[in-house]
Amino acid sequence: MLIKDIGEFALIERFKRKIKTDSSVIKGSGDDCAVLKLDKQNHQLFTCDMLVEGVDFTLKDNSYLVGRKAIAVSLSDIASCSGKPRHCVISLGLPKNTSLSFVDKLFQGMLDIAKKYKVNIVGGDLSRSSKVVLDVSMLGEVEKKYLTLRSGARVGDIIFITGELGGSISGKHLQFTPRIKEARFLSRNFKVKAMTDISDGLTSDLGHILEQSNAGAVIYEALIPLSGKARNLSDALNNGEDFELLFTLSRPQALKLLKRKLSIFRPIGEIRERKYGFQLIDKRSRPVNIKPKGFKHF
Amino acid sequence: MLIKDIGEFALIERFKRKIKTDSSVIKGSGDDCAVLKLDKQNHQLFTCDMLVEGVDFTLKDNSYLVGRKAIAVSLSDIASCSGKPRHCVISLGLPKNTSLSFVDKLFQGMLDIAKKYKVNIVGGDLSRSSKVVLDVSMLGEVEKKYLTLRSGARVGDIIFITGELGGSISGKHLQFTPRIKEARFLSRNFKVKAMTDISDGLTSDLGHILEQSNAGAVIYEALIPLSGKARNLSDALNNGEDFELLFTLSRPQALKLLKRKLSIFRPIGEIRERKYGFQLIDKRSRPVNIKPKGFKHF
Repeated sequence: MLIKDIGEFALIERFKRKIKTDSSVIKGSGDDCAVLKLDKQNHQLFTCDMLVEGVDFTLKDNSYLVGRKAIAVSLSDIASCSGKPRHCVISLGLPKNTSLSFVDKLFQGMLDIAKKYKVNIVGGDLSRSSKVVLDVSMLGEVEKKYLTLRSGARVGDIIFITGELGGSISGKHLQFTPRIKEARFLSRNFKVKAMTDISDGLTSDLGHILEQSNAGAVIYEALIPLSGKARNLSDALNNGEDFELLFTLSRPQALKLLKRKLSIFRPIGEIRERKYGFQLIDKRSRPVNIKPKGFKHF
Repeated sequence: MLIKDIGEFALIERFKRKIKTDSSVIKGSGDDCAVLKLDKQNHQLFTCDMLVEGVDFTLKDNSYLVGRKAIAVSLSDIASCSGKPRHCVISLGLPKNTSLSFVDKLFQGMLDIAKKYKVNIVGGDLSRSSKVVLDVSMLGEVEKKYLTLRSGARVGDIIFITGELGGSISGKHLQFTPRIKEARFLSRNFKVKAMTDISDGLTSDLGHILEQSNAGAVIYEALIPLSGKARNLSDALNNGEDFELLFTLSRPQALKLLKRKLSIFRPIGEIRERKYGFQLIDKRSRPVNIKPKGFKHF
């Protein structure tokens, strides 16, 4: 039996089931970040993301942007939990025939985005490998009252996203803006019920919120903002790596947000009861059952 | 110009030079762990280690032991700083044709050692890759007064190691005991001046202490405890992955430790002034200048 026969998510579940954690762990694996006890006011956030040549980038990509992305994906996880990024370590596997200029640009991409988001690069590990591999682990902090998880969505909540979807395949995955600022704005001014980032794809990531919140949902095709670079609706629904925020607000809070007329936040649907399932209402008002279909590694 | 032309350590220096950190960072890259401000009594430790198929293990190795090693190397880093391991995240790259039984054993090896050392596994990332890659990032805690770095060695200190050296190549690298217990014993009962673990090789790792402490050293061939599995002195001096502790104590503290007659701690030499360099006194009492010659990735 091979791992591709059981699939990525079943493989993760298989492992997760066996893990036991102590009382210092508020939330273990299964959300965008682990949440750990820190002090009276704050939790600590802890996340890791691995990028692999040939899967997450190619050697034809600008290595400055590859380095940037390696840090940005973890920033996006910290944003999902409404946190402030603080420290990171970087493991890097490189073929020995890698050119110095490739690595210099890779490093510069990391340094620049770390500086911009005030993350301290505090350590790393360098290894020989046959393909380029980058793994960034990041720590963040979040005020207890601001923490957002995937599990807080409730029936009647309005579902929002930031930005536009479906541009990932045309290069956005290497140049996206981690939504730290937007997440902090939301957590400071609104009561965000559930939040995650769109890394696997809208249907897949909303699926995670629904599963962890034990809820259903309806989203409206007409409300989904397509990137000018999306080829079709499926790019917006099922492509990963848009790295936009996906979150829910109670109806009164949603109205309050909409009154601010901030074009970056757009409502796309509503949380329903679990038994309702997960539906898309298409442009002709026909309901279509959605099966989450995001990027899978296996 | 290729990275193999400048070498692993120059490549790391090239990057480190450009990193700036804020006041939350007590010690950034360049030691076994990063040291971060935590609270009044304690610092937080943060480290990462990447294992790559074909470099750190092969597919012929028992994957239970490979999983165990992935966690154990980070435990050894936490031990070097005299800390207690607390939380870790695991990034895993796997070829899609990997067998489920390989992965099940890999996971079990991780779970068992994590349980034994009371480390919470709190998250991870799973990716497709052409070779098996494991990267573990670990958090630990250490009382401020117990923290040990590479930089504290002083002229006259006695140099100690735990255990025996040179057995790594015969399989110890997959089955070593991370020296958490020994490091905690030392920090509770002695004033340890400098400490690191032997991951690159004795000469290389003692070289790190000398460099960071701006000191020289003499070690005695006759005092170096060879593992029964070492083929020769060079295995003990230059092979990496023994994962024993290497530390220094002032002479009075060293005498106090020696009086305890604990066979696991063995003196092997003495810290000298920087200008003295780094010498080995061989079995015929002849001095030999040492050039640190441990494992290099490039």
